[in-house]
Amino acid sequence: MLSALDLARRIEAGELTPVQVLDRAAEAIAQREAEVGAFATLDLDAARKAAQAPALKDTLLRGLPVGLKDIFDTADLPTEYGSPIYKGHRPAGDAALVSMIRRAGGVTIGKTVTTEFAHQHPGRTRNPHNPAHTPGGSSSGSAAGVAAGFMAIATGSQTGGSVIRPASYCGVAGFKPSFGLLPTVGMKCVSWHLDTAGLFAAGVADVAFAAAAISGRDLRVDGRTLAAPRIGILRTPPWPEASPDMNGAVEIAARAAAKAGARVSDITLPPSLAEAFKAHGTIHGYEAARSLGSEYERHRGQLSKSIAELIENAQAFTPAIYDDARRTTSRARAALAELMSGIDVILSPSAPGAAPQGLNSTGSSTFNRLWTLMGPPCVSIPGLADRSGLPLGVQVIGRFGGDRAALEAAMFVEVVLAL
Amino acid sequence: MLSALDLARRIEAGELTPVQVLDRAAEAIAQREAEVGAFATLDLDAARKAAQAPALKDTLLRGLPVGLKDIFDTADLPTEYGSPIYKGHRPAGDAALVSMIRRAGGVTIGKTVTTEFAHQHPGRTRNPHNPAHTPGGSSSGSAAGVAAGFMAIATGSQTGGSVIRPASYCGVAGFKPSFGLLPTVGMKCVSWHLDTAGLFAAGVADVAFAAAAISGRDLRVDGRTLAAPRIGILRTPPWPEASPDMNGAVEIAARAAAKAGARVSDITLPPSLAEAFKAHGTIHGYEAARSLGSEYERHRGQLSKSIAELIENAQAFTPAIYDDARRTTSRARAALAELMSGIDVILSPSAPGAAPQGLNSTGSSTFNRLWTLMGPPCVSIPGLADRSGLPLGVQVIGRFGGDRAALEAAMFVEVVLAL
Repeated sequence: MLSALDLARRIEAGELTPVQVLDRAAEAIAQREAEVGAFATLDLDAARKAAQAPALKDTLLRGLPVGLKDIFDTADLPTEYGSPIYKGHRPAGDAALVSMIRRAGGVTIGKTVTTEFAHQHPGRTRNPHNPAHTPGGSSSGSAAGVAAGFMAIATGSQTGGSVIRPASYCGVAGFKPSFGLLPTVGMKCVSWHLDTAGLFAAGVADVAFAAAAISGRDLRVDGRTLAAPRIGILRTPPWPEASPDMNGAVEIAARAAAKAGARVSDITLPPSLAEAFKAHGTIHGYEAARSLGSEYERHRGQLSKSIAELIENAQAFTPAIYDDARRTTSRARAALAELMSGIDVILSPSAPGAAPQGLNSTGSSTFNRLWTLMGPPCVSIPGLADRSGLPLGVQVIGRFGGDRAALEAAMFVEVVLAL
Repeated sequence: MLSALDLARRIEAGELTPVQVLDRAAEAIAQREAEVGAFATLDLDAARKAAQAPALKDTLLRGLPVGLKDIFDTADLPTEYGSPIYKGHRPAGDAALVSMIRRAGGVTIGKTVTTEFAHQHPGRTRNPHNPAHTPGGSSSGSAAGVAAGFMAIATGSQTGGSVIRPASYCGVAGFKPSFGLLPTVGMKCVSWHLDTAGLFAAGVADVAFAAAAISGRDLRVDGRTLAAPRIGILRTPPWPEASPDMNGAVEIAARAAAKAGARVSDITLPPSLAEAFKAHGTIHGYEAARSLGSEYERHRGQLSKSIAELIENAQAFTPAIYDDARRTTSRARAALAELMSGIDVILSPSAPGAAPQGLNSTGSSTFNRLWTLMGPPCVSIPGLADRSGLPLGVQVIGRFGGDRAALEAAMFVEVVLAL
């Protein structure tokens, strides 16, 4: 993998140039892209030109190669949202996050495969750790691309579990910031109360570095003295429904953290959070039916069954049912804030287990949907694996707005796991 | 003007057909569009075809002619956002609100003039009540078009005061619903925490009817027994800074309401709302700089001075300053909810006065920005005029989420003003 932080330091020190970093990425792509299928569009020539711009040396990202999930609009690359409806579609401008990445000195190398409209219908990407397994979704190409060393940083988005789950399956760091921290303007909208822009990189320090550089916020966690966090663990249903290996991974992480001084305690989710779990589906469906109304009316025949069903099933959701789901959400957010007043982060599986075999499904977002709806920062920490060697991510969930604290806690766990 | 409610009833009763209604609109357009300049694009042929669809008779809007502010994406009409950058731009799909209007049976007749990116730089629209005066902005063509009888319903959007102010200047009803009630997906984004989709129609009952039909919510106020509302009036700075005629209009409305049984009392805004007034500018600038980052980088020479300044001045807003403005907003919302626990609505000027002379400015949003940021429903009630005969709107501000109550109170005031 390409460590964004390490490469940026070496470019700064004059040991490497952005073009040399790009050459490494290009080499990995030449070797493995045919197998992995991370890209919807790849333009290394344009990237090479961009990597030679002298102004990059004054930027934070210093010309590091970046992959953009193909639901972020780009004016200079096609943007197809994983849908045949948008074959060859060329937006008039760049998404806000894309402009911010370029301003921070990131060099776009291409658009990465997304499931159709960042929902369930899979693209062609395979898991770099085992091509017979899904990379997860919906940010399939971004997670797989970082895992395969095709790029140092990649953008993703999460409406259900689309950043944390593929990060876990592909063994990279995934960061779903607090809702709204990274703008979603120019990102194809499915659900305006859920869609959250996120990032992938090799490790926690890398993804924090990328988020800091792009957002202009104080989010870096490298070079800091990391305080041992107070960690809460969920051991009541549905949380233990993860695979034995995944539950084992969480226990390993918790034990390692405790040994290093973290205070680990069991917590129980109040009933309002179980209600909120159901509210996610209502809000998702109601908003998707409106956001994708144009596609449904104009191009129904080109929608997958899963998208058509998402929209059609939402007819049952009246405004009153939707409003109720929104109120449930508010209550649950207050309860979660109360629950977290005594701890810094929750430690949880990033996904039910390792990446499932097969490419027809991108896996389940059971361990993510509630957190997407609640809006706090979530970080998937790489480094563990199941007995077959497939990656297992453990997830740190912080307090809403406490993005750096969540990244610090994730970094703490990542470091102690490597000891 | 074309009363949406009246026309829908007459179509339902078989007294009129949608095509006959469209003919009336077309006649008004033929007579006055050269002078008013409400349309960015007009397609009456397509509208005539759409108005003949038999399925319209089962819809709520029954084929009524609708104008769409040209910041809402449409696949079958150009969408230029009031900017030369987007000359001839044809989006791939329709905005969510456009799909919802069509599903409700509205027939799009064209796109209405918007200021550049719904900010300050004016388009060519003139006030139908006096062509030497501004129609207001940014929803200039929608307000003027409804006032001139070109359409029964028009969409608008408000980031500062872009629905309520032009409604006031043009003498039509304007409705800025609670933030988020109408989706903004596919509407050109300037500020994601402020941009609010709204509607224009001839009177309060018409705009409530349109909002109900489009959203599927119980928002109609016609045929109801209207309870006399408890009204709060702001008589401390900056609220009395309106023109004498406008202050007089608010007093007339308050006296008429009191005579009909409304309880009218003076209220004072708590200090946190004065702070929030300033926070609006921070949030607006910070988010605009990101939302319009692509236009600024790629097409700076084609941006007006006012947009360039909005973006450039925002460089002073660090994430910390922005976060602080967001926290100020939260505090102010809680204070406003507390303030409104004893009243149903606030009565206020819709604008500082009647439409100013000249077309170089669309007027001031001083009386709107705070409410846009706070997010409650606002209704501009038509029916009053200054000594020169130019319209004056009075604004009813309800409780967040209490859209029907706000519309009912506005209807109450509109009715008692007509007695």
